[in-house]
Parts: sequence; C-alpha cells; structure tokens
Amino acid sequence: MTKKAIYADWIYYDGKIEQNKYLVINDNIIEGLAPAPENGCEVVRRENSAIFPGLINTHAHLPMSMFRGLADDLALMDWLRNHIWPVESKWLSETFVHDATLLSAVEMIRCGTVCANDMYFFSDHVASALIRCGLRGVVGVGVLDFPTKTGKGADDYISKGAALYQKYKDHETIDISICPHAPYTVNPDNFRKCVEFCGRHDILLHTHLLEAPTERADITERYGKSPVELMNEVGAFDIKSIFAHTIHPTDEEIELMGSKGVCVSHCLESNMKLASGFSPVKKMLDAGMNVTIGTDGQASNNDIDMIGEMSSVAKFHKAFNMDATVLDAATVLDMATKNAAKALGLGKCGELKAGYKADFFVLSFDAVNLTPVYNPVSHLIYSASQRDVTDVYVNGKCLMKKGIITVIDEDEIKEKARSWAAKIKE
Amino acid sequence: MTKKAIYADWIYYDGKIEQNKYLVINDNIIEGLAPAPENGCEVVRRENSAIFPGLINTHAHLPMSMFRGLADDLALMDWLRNHIWPVESKWLSETFVHDATLLSAVEMIRCGTVCANDMYFFSDHVASALIRCGLRGVVGVGVLDFPTKTGKGADDYISKGAALYQKYKDHETIDISICPHAPYTVNPDNFRKCVEFCGRHDILLHTHLLEAPTERADITERYGKSPVELMNEVGAFDIKSIFAHTIHPTDEEIELMGSKGVCVSHCLESNMKLASGFSPVKKMLDAGMNVTIGTDGQASNNDIDMIGEMSSVAKFHKAFNMDATVLDAATVLDMATKNAAKALGLGKCGELKAGYKADFFVLSFDAVNLTPVYNPVSHLIYSASQRDVTDVYVNGKCLMKKGIITVIDEDEIKEKARSWAAKIKE
Repeated sequence: MTKKAIYADWIYYDGKIEQNKYLVINDNIIEGLAPAPENGCEVVRRENSAIFPGLINTHAHLPMSMFRGLADDLALMDWLRNHIWPVESKWLSETFVHDATLLSAVEMIRCGTVCANDMYFFSDHVASALIRCGLRGVVGVGVLDFPTKTGKGADDYISKGAALYQKYKDHETIDISICPHAPYTVNPDNFRKCVEFCGRHDILLHTHLLEAPTERADITERYGKSPVELMNEVGAFDIKSIFAHTIHPTDEEIELMGSKGVCVSHCLESNMKLASGFSPVKKMLDAGMNVTIGTDGQASNNDIDMIGEMSSVAKFHKAFNMDATVLDAATVLDMATKNAAKALGLGKCGELKAGYKADFFVLSFDAVNLTPVYNPVSHLIYSASQRDVTDVYVNGKCLMKKGIITVIDEDEIKEKARSWAAKIKE
Repeated sequence: MTKKAIYADWIYYDGKIEQNKYLVINDNIIEGLAPAPENGCEVVRRENSAIFPGLINTHAHLPMSMFRGLADDLALMDWLRNHIWPVESKWLSETFVHDATLLSAVEMIRCGTVCANDMYFFSDHVASALIRCGLRGVVGVGVLDFPTKTGKGADDYISKGAALYQKYKDHETIDISICPHAPYTVNPDNFRKCVEFCGRHDILLHTHLLEAPTERADITERYGKSPVELMNEVGAFDIKSIFAHTIHPTDEEIELMGSKGVCVSHCLESNMKLASGFSPVKKMLDAGMNVTIGTDGQASNNDIDMIGEMSSVAKFHKAFNMDATVLDAATVLDMATKNAAKALGLGKCGELKAGYKADFFVLSFDAVNLTPVYNPVSHLIYSASQRDVTDVYVNGKCLMKKGIITVIDEDEIKEKARSWAAKIKE
C-alpha cells in the first residue's frame, strides 16, 4: 500500500477546478485533496499543470492502428471491400492483434486515455496487450452470423465470449463485452442470444447502430422494422449496452431511447471522414440518452486522440445547433469521463473524488498553444494537443511520467509496427 | 549566399511525394531536388520525416492570442460585447500588440505556418513582431466607420495604411493590406475608398463577409442589397481581395463569385465554435472560387494550429456533402499552401519547386500517432499533431531546429504573456 500526493496548480475534482492542492491516492483509490502532503507520502509536483480524470474512449477497434492511413478519401464500401477487409483477411492473427493493440495502448496513454471500449477479434490478445500496458479496458468479443478466422458462427463466437468472460471476470482492470457487430451482420435471433448472455452475466453489449445512411432502409426492408425498433425488440435497450455512432435516429426513436436512458458512443471524426453523417447529440442528450465519446478505429479517423475528439465534438455541435452555448467544455469533458464510466458500467471510475479509482492524467500548460491560462477546462477542450499530456495514472499506477512511457519500451513497439507495415505494403 | 541541402525520407515536391532526396536551397530560393548534397553545401538530415511547403494562414487576428480561453461557450454578441470588446478597449496598446503577436508568431512556427494574413490594429507592431521572428506576413490595417484608439474614421485609417504601405513596400517578407472590417461596420462609400486604394497600389483588400447568420438580413435592410451584391458593386471582387468566412452565400452568389475567381478564407473551427454556420466549400470550389484556410483569432478557435484546421476541414466536408471522396488530403494541403499564396498575391510561394521561395517545414513521423507510415500526405492531414513539426524555414532562414525556436527566446515570450494575463484577469 503506497500513498502518493500529486500536486498540480489546478485539479478538476468532483466537477470543479481546485487550485494549488495535492491529489492524494492510496494504492489504487483516490483519498481526496490536501493542502500539503502527509509525512512519508510519495510526492509528485507538476507546476503550471492540471490534473483531469482519465479519458474513456467508448468505441475503438484498437488493433486497426496498423492500418492507419492505409486507405483514405474513399467511399465507405470501396474502403471496406477493396482495402480494409482484404488486409484484415490476409494479416489478422494473434500476434498481429497483440502488437497492434500495444501500438494503440501507447497512443492511448499519450493522449490521457485510461480506458477503451474495444470491439475486435482475437480479443484475448487485445486484453493481454492492455494488461501489459496497465490500461483499463472493456474488451469486446465480436459476433457475426458468418464464420471468420475466430469463430464458426454466432453460437461459437458467444461461447468463446463466455470462456473469456470466465477468464477475466475477477480481473481488476479488464471487463469482457459481447459485440454483435451490427443489425446488418447479425440477425435478430443471434442478437437475442447476445442480449440473453449479457443480461444473465450483467456484462456490456456493444454494437454499431445507424452508422451508414443506408442502414435504416436495408434493415426495414429485411425485417419490416427500423434498426432502433429491432434493438428495442430484441431487448438490447433493457440491459447494460452501448451503441456506437447512432447517427440517423428519428425524433420518435430519440424519445424512445431517451426514456430508456440508452447509451451511445458518438464518433464524430470517423462519421465525418467516412461521410456517414452528423449525429443529433444535443437532441439525444436533451431526451435523456447518455452520449459518450469514441474515436472508432485508426483506419477511419485516423487516430485515437480523445483530446482532439473532444475538441471536435465541442465545436461542431455549436454550429450544428446554431447555438454557441451548446456542449460547453465541462459537458464534453463529462461525456468523455464520468458519463463514459457509467455507460460501460465501470463502477467508481471517471471522476476524481474520494473512493474513486485513481485514473487520471496531468496536462502541462507550458506550451505556447496553452499560454496564457484563464480556464484550464476550456484549454483542455479547445486548445490542448495530446502532446501536452505529461503523466498518466491508471488504477493508481503511473504509466507515463514526464512524457516517458514507463510500462513498456515504446520504441520497440513502434519498430514492430513498422515491420508489420512493410509486409502489408508489399 | 549559402547553399543548403535538406534530406528527408519524403519531400512533397511540385505536388507529389519524392522519396530519399535532398531539397536544395540557395539563399532564400529553392533550387531543386538532388540525390546527394553538393560539396561545400550545408547538409541537414531528417530521418523518418517529410518536408512540406509551409502553411499559410489566410485569416488571423494574431494579437488576440492573449485572449485565448478568456470567454468560451457564449453566444456571439454576448461574447463580443461583454467579454472581447471590453478587454480590447481596456488593454490594446502598441506594446500589447507587439507582445501578443510574438506569442502568436511562436505558435505559428510550432505548427509549420510560415505566413499569416492578419487583420488588427497597431499594425506596425504586428509587422515588427513578425519580422523579429522571421515570418512572412500580410499585415492588415483595420478600417472602420467609427473612431478607435488607432484612427478617427475611414479616411484616417486609410491614410495610416498608406503610410505603412510606403514603409514596407519593398520589404522582403511583409506586405500590407487594407482591411475594411465588414459590410456592417464599413459603409459602401468607405468600402469604395478602400477598394480604390488597394486597386491603385495592387495590394490586398481583406474583409469579413457573411459570418454572422444575421448579416444578410441586416445589410439588405440597410442598403437594399445583399452583402455579396454590395461587395460586387463596390468593386471588391475586381481587385486583389480575400473574404474571410463567407458562410452563407446563395447558389447565385456562388456562381457570381466563381465567375470572378473570388478568394475566400474558410475558418471552419471558428465558425463551428461561434455557431456561425457551415460554409459550402465544395460548391464554392466547384464554381471556380479559390478557397483557402484560416484559423481566425485565438479568442474564437482557440488556437492558430493550421494542421488541426486542415484536419477539421478535410473531415467535415465529407459528411457535409455525404461523399467521402470530397476534399481529399492533397486538395486540403493545396488550399493551405499554393492556393493561399495565390490568394494573397505572394508570388512564388506556397509550393516546393525550383525558383520558389524556401518556405517549408519538416514533420517527423516518429510519434506513435504517425506510426506506421503508408502515405505521408494523409498522415499530415488526418493524424499529425502540431508537435510533430520539428523544423521550419521561411525565406531560406531556419526559425525552428529540432523543436527549438531559434529566432527568439520562447520562454521569455510566454512569461510576458502570463504577466499580461495576470493584469487582464484582475
């Protein structure tokens, strides 16, 4: 049991800025704020810096880091069918997924992200990479109607999910989720099986919803109901669940989802880059939905920088609603921290207050783009770069100290990524 | 006369990527590419890096750096009347403008920006700060119908512009422009005087057009014609000119402006944050308008990071047009470089090719967010952070070397900015 006291000029504690205090953590738990460190306590001081709760990325495909910038400026189906699926089908393996997740883990740490809600295949190797780097993660097991390298069909995928759930159910920083891919790749019967499994074990169901503009028409033609109606009917809104994208809901669907407190991962930059459309976040929040923030995979963003994503979200929705007071800086920070922790069912995470998990990052205001400082929260959202993050703690453990990743050899991870890319390019 | 050969793995030369070559510059002029450096040449090597033409910010208010984050998440008129104008009216002075421009100059260099098209007051002190940092600039002299600290009225502002024009007309890196603020603050007669002056000396006219959603109705009520019709009538489209924002043109106005090749500075992030609206850039480009990229002032963005701005522009317009092939990475880079140089009338600037001015930056791909590399241009637009810029050259002179600003004491500039902010906060 180690007690640490971390000083910063500003600490975003319990939803407001506290000045010139120490954040005291006891092992992996936040004890509170103090004006001075106790005797015998390990002391860390960060001048001209702020401590913020760690960011939580609620929709990622971490092993796609290896495909960053491989194919851009293409229509969605051209991009998927002629570029992404072929390289995935050729290269995916346990080692690939592990190495690619390590690359993403370093990228997460560097931008102050302490937890990702991931959806991919070879999920055990996503989990082991996150554990190796000390990160928190909700690791999703992909479910499809059809066979892939990782399973024969829905029952098989789910039973693999069940085994992984057993393996990690008492793990300190890893949760397992079941990820039926989308209403257009998983039929209602298989969706129901996923919902049943998740409901029984109280684990997260994570899926894509209303991403492509054509999804509504496709699903309605196939099943006689909209994707949202389908999700409601299979019971996905009545368990712990999160829906990535949710770009094209009708007002009635927003009302329905609001009444059920449905959780969404808003992936604005990916939605823009793939020309998927603009999600009505303000309306969804007003209706009582829990809207959080995700980056999607690096193949479609092209990074997993949550600071950049928060900035885009805060700015975009002001013009989209023609109201500059919409999604203010503190609201967007909440979306990326405490609302995200709630959506993923992480328990006492996502906020800095007594009894909560010690997940946080330090942002330095030394850079010219953050000079001078009037409001640290505004600077984080509107002016900061991921490179202003200097220190990251997850579950009380320091993963980055003064800009140096302490849990893994970053250069080795990057060198391995370059070797994979050389093969992929061939 | 010094010859330099700068090696990078990738050089974006004459619109395409060249690999493993040296960019050869002779004093302030690009001589060409070479496979190896000549004898006696100063050699610089940057591994795992790319050289790109320097970015040109076509709409800035550089002295507003000191107000970054002072007031956010507010409606435009509340923000201007109750926050920005009061601090401007209290604090603006020659020293303030000089110190604040130095802060912006450092910020420009750090993100690979080699030239800004500025609009503010105390313009001689904007110019001197840019010169001190070795940057290129088009320094605008603000014109209003009413008196301020810097002039008594339109004639007085213009005559001060005339004096500044005389002072700088043979300067190597500084041009002067005349900046009637906007159709709602400068009447048609005064606009005509500005147009006449600019036309006579072939200097740039720089103004705001169609920023606030209410501008069309206000101007039409006042003058019986739309802001675009007014600009056409006063002759502003027939001289060297650039129009910031231009968010709300009708299709007919786009056609008119296209037929005249009108130049626009698109300020997407500011337009989003102030809820001004979304400019139809794709339509304007298709009509033959020259659309470039600006950041606007730090009080409304909240940075002048052209790399971030290019990224937002490239992503946003895909979803806005529901077409992922729109504004591809190379098009957006052109908007921020060669099209900008053309709009500002900079001559042989904005491209890397023989005979052009040696204005460029080096981007390192060492960071995790740029690993691995498939396409350097895609990485610059979609994944790079301003902090990946390592070296900046303007007019052949090195302003930043391996991340260290070489032309000025950066810490001193930032410390001065903090002192100003302490007074402003009081």
